[in-house]
Amino acid sequence: MSRFAIGVDFGTESGRAVLVDMSDGRQVATAVSTYSHGVIDERLPLADREVLLPPDWAVQDPEDYLRVFEEAVPAVVAQAGVEARDVVGIGIDFTACTMLPTKADGTPLCVIPELRANPHAWVKLWKHHAAQPEADRINAVARATGQPWLDRYGGRISSEWFFSKALQILDEAPEVYRAADRLIEAADWVIWRLTGVESRNACTAGYKAMWSKRDGFPDPAYFGALDPRLANVIDEKMQRDIRFMGERAGGLSEEAATWTGLLPGTAVAVANVDAHVAAPASTVVEPGRMVMIMGTSTCHIVLSEGEHDVPGMCGYVEDGVIPGLFGYEAGQSCVGDHFSWFVEHAVPAAYQEEAQARGIDLHALLQEKAARLRVGQSGLMALDWWNGNRSVLVDAELGGLLIGATLATVPEEIYRALIEATAFGTRVIIETFEAHGVPVREIVACGGLAEKSPLIMQIYADVTGRPFRLSAADQTPALGAAMFGAVAAGEAAGGYATIQDAACAMARLKDDAYEPIAENVVIYELLYKEYLRLHDYFGRGENDVMKTLRRLRAQATAAEPVPAGH
Amino acid sequence: MSRFAIGVDFGTESGRAVLVDMSDGRQVATAVSTYSHGVIDERLPLADREVLLPPDWAVQDPEDYLRVFEEAVPAVVAQAGVEARDVVGIGIDFTACTMLPTKADGTPLCVIPELRANPHAWVKLWKHHAAQPEADRINAVARATGQPWLDRYGGRISSEWFFSKALQILDEAPEVYRAADRLIEAADWVIWRLTGVESRNACTAGYKAMWSKRDGFPDPAYFGALDPRLANVIDEKMQRDIRFMGERAGGLSEEAATWTGLLPGTAVAVANVDAHVAAPASTVVEPGRMVMIMGTSTCHIVLSEGEHDVPGMCGYVEDGVIPGLFGYEAGQSCVGDHFSWFVEHAVPAAYQEEAQARGIDLHALLQEKAARLRVGQSGLMALDWWNGNRSVLVDAELGGLLIGATLATVPEEIYRALIEATAFGTRVIIETFEAHGVPVREIVACGGLAEKSPLIMQIYADVTGRPFRLSAADQTPALGAAMFGAVAAGEAAGGYATIQDAACAMARLKDDAYEPIAENVVIYELLYKEYLRLHDYFGRGENDVMKTLRRLRAQATAAEPVPAGH
Repeated sequence: MSRFAIGVDFGTESGRAVLVDMSDGRQVATAVSTYSHGVIDERLPLADREVLLPPDWAVQDPEDYLRVFEEAVPAVVAQAGVEARDVVGIGIDFTACTMLPTKADGTPLCVIPELRANPHAWVKLWKHHAAQPEADRINAVARATGQPWLDRYGGRISSEWFFSKALQILDEAPEVYRAADRLIEAADWVIWRLTGVESRNACTAGYKAMWSKRDGFPDPAYFGALDPRLANVIDEKMQRDIRFMGERAGGLSEEAATWTGLLPGTAVAVANVDAHVAAPASTVVEPGRMVMIMGTSTCHIVLSEGEHDVPGMCGYVEDGVIPGLFGYEAGQSCVGDHFSWFVEHAVPAAYQEEAQARGIDLHALLQEKAARLRVGQSGLMALDWWNGNRSVLVDAELGGLLIGATLATVPEEIYRALIEATAFGTRVIIETFEAHGVPVREIVACGGLAEKSPLIMQIYADVTGRPFRLSAADQTPALGAAMFGAVAAGEAAGGYATIQDAACAMARLKDDAYEPIAENVVIYELLYKEYLRLHDYFGRGENDVMKTLRRLRAQATAAEPVPAGH
Repeated sequence: MSRFAIGVDFGTESGRAVLVDMSDGRQVATAVSTYSHGVIDERLPLADREVLLPPDWAVQDPEDYLRVFEEAVPAVVAQAGVEARDVVGIGIDFTACTMLPTKADGTPLCVIPELRANPHAWVKLWKHHAAQPEADRINAVARATGQPWLDRYGGRISSEWFFSKALQILDEAPEVYRAADRLIEAADWVIWRLTGVESRNACTAGYKAMWSKRDGFPDPAYFGALDPRLANVIDEKMQRDIRFMGERAGGLSEEAATWTGLLPGTAVAVANVDAHVAAPASTVVEPGRMVMIMGTSTCHIVLSEGEHDVPGMCGYVEDGVIPGLFGYEAGQSCVGDHFSWFVEHAVPAAYQEEAQARGIDLHALLQEKAARLRVGQSGLMALDWWNGNRSVLVDAELGGLLIGATLATVPEEIYRALIEATAFGTRVIIETFEAHGVPVREIVACGGLAEKSPLIMQIYADVTGRPFRLSAADQTPALGAAMFGAVAAGEAAGGYATIQDAACAMARLKDDAYEPIAENVVIYELLYKEYLRLHDYFGRGENDVMKTLRRLRAQATAAEPVPAGH
């Protein structure tokens, strides 16, 4: 008799449930629930008043997450035609750091009427980039006080991370900070909603909140140096008891059982992060192979037996991905988002008409045209910083750059240059890892972009000079979440004792690999040198024009209401 | 009884005739003849075979120019309802350097069947940019041999100019060079066609072919050092007898009289250049006020009593614009073309639909939206080099740059940044003039862009910190051409003795001026500093990435046929 696990992957725009056969990882059913409010970056979705968000904000409505349990989970059970009792475990993965303030019982502050119009009461999404001043302070104080944990994070804490966002709440909305009994990752919050028990996972604690298995969190003196009111943030608003991946967070509560249609008491795994669960789901449970989860942004995970300080990386966490290994993470904050921005804002009507006439989408049309260009033929180069740079510069205030345009430049040339820019960004990450003792021989890609675009994969192979394989799963993170659900259920219940065992049975790669094409590699070597020079010139402080432009933009925007439609 | 003059303005895409009342400059009638082949930059318009043009080429069909005399001139005479005998003079202005090879009788080589498929037999349009290697050689040899004329041209000869183009013919198609009895500016060629007499004008000779009133052309030793076959180019294929502006080139031939419907013998003025005739037509006949002729590109003309070497300018010519003064010229090779490129290649369907629904064009829509942005609010900056840089860098191989883009960047922000970039480019030109003894207190703008866009004019006033006035004429160059026609006719025939007299009677400014707005000036000062730094970094050799990209593009393009539709 088959046993099943459910994985729920909370993405940027929607949540997806998959029901997986635990014996072989086969995805039996899948269902998506789109967040009704999506990414909120212009104005809060309030019926009674207009609250505009400043530039660089991105928030979400936590109620949207719960609807995924109510809609997508029952849908996959129904689709698959299985009995609730055959589903023995459930796991989730989430974007991170995506965090919110709640009351002691888990009630999000943004549902409380008197706080609802305050943007700081809402969920701050991973790509909320308005906490750069706080990140700057966190880094300056850490350097000044010689914090030993700083090197684990490449020497720089990101504006996207937990305490940057928490400190922004305190700075800009002290009343929200005061009203918050808990500051919590959305990943942990949904597990709390499922089980009725608050738990905190080692992955987000380690990668986003400066926690480590050996040293715990930074001490109150450090937090107090940032702001005296922050000194006891861990004991007042968080939790020191951190749970590891694959552990059972609890059993499904009666209430959550009614949402999902599963049995009360069903094993629920400790929360996890989308990129990190993708590693075992892509067969990567050992050093030397890097996993790239390619979607709106790209996350890179690579494992190592040793502890290495790699400058500008997101960080490494002992047991943070796979027990017994150090899991290293890097990231590119603008990949699929980059191409989507282009398609939405910069592709002329004639292309749209051609795509419509042929019944394909604009990305497909542009990739088809871009694939006809030889390497170097566009005459263009871009810096992939439309959404700042996460690794290795760790600077959300950098901006995009396109260079080399002529009056003969056509859209597919720009599109290809944007793809190449993200590939160059990946190469900077790989070379930085290798220069600091973390080898990357091969890459396993997963996620929508990797699935859909042979052109993108070939460009990445050519630019990095390394073979690219693809995860066989359609929905790799969701599979990974289900695998951890299977581990949480345990061997006795038909699950697995370890994530390695689960990977061995449930994860696979596609047969085909993208190998670097020698003649392309030669030209990309030349282009990469130029990329690196621009990268360092604009990214390492020699010319801060991007920051000056951003500062002037902020001043101009503050001087008047943001125009409608902006 | 009224007397009339006709001015014919040969632009990039069409020729335009205006019939002007000589007493007051009133434009009585106007007609346009669009060139049937326009700008030829992809393939030659041959029925029997496909000849693709390499990147950076731009050629034209000389037959298109003659059709302007056959279509537009009779049209204005008919429209105005005047008698042919009341038209006492005709003048023309042309883009420059736009040149072609012909036989001794003026027959263009491209109409000769055995040469028709050779692109070098066609007219090379001003914006043909494929002669950069030849320009580099012309400059290198001039510097090495200490040519005294080099400083008159800001120390650098452009790839757009006469001998760069002539030398490219010799380099790449020696058979075309050999077959050419004459190498001639299209401006002079159309006058030859009108009068049956070959003449050469001082304006194009001075600004584009290194000639001066005092020293004539460079000597044969210099040309021989470029290529021995070029040593006697002046005596073999050109003419040393140079005629000045306002002189009578001849009378209308019998054949040309049948084309135009005018009387044989009607006074025809020596050929002239669009930008240069615009100066007196904009009332500028004295130092201190700069004329900007704003169209696909912008040309700047300013007069001075003295002789000053201004680095990076197009050049100065004694008596080249107005007798008795030195006429200084500068240029920006990508202005209207810049905005047109953007509208054609980078504006999404939603904007096109909005413009259509409102019955306005995309430029108007984008300018309306861009006008709502405060200075600095776009967060963007561009270098206006989509078509290279004419002044002050004199380098056709530079490319465009856009910096500061984010995922929130919208089309009108980019559009505004492109406008601002051209304004910054203008400011570089003004400051370079002033730093070298040629003052610019006020600007008079003319041309379609200036007419149509208050936003552009205000941005230019704010960026340069100087008032902008507008020429009152709808078609300033055509008016200027007619004014020179009136001078060619002479006082006795109801024309004028001098161009100053003609300007006094026939030229006027609009009443309104665009004055700099103080709060905008302050922010543009900051942005201009950033622009200058990027301008010098990428434009003066510190980082030659634009040239590397262009070289790789040329190599990739040469490696295979240019894809269809490119």
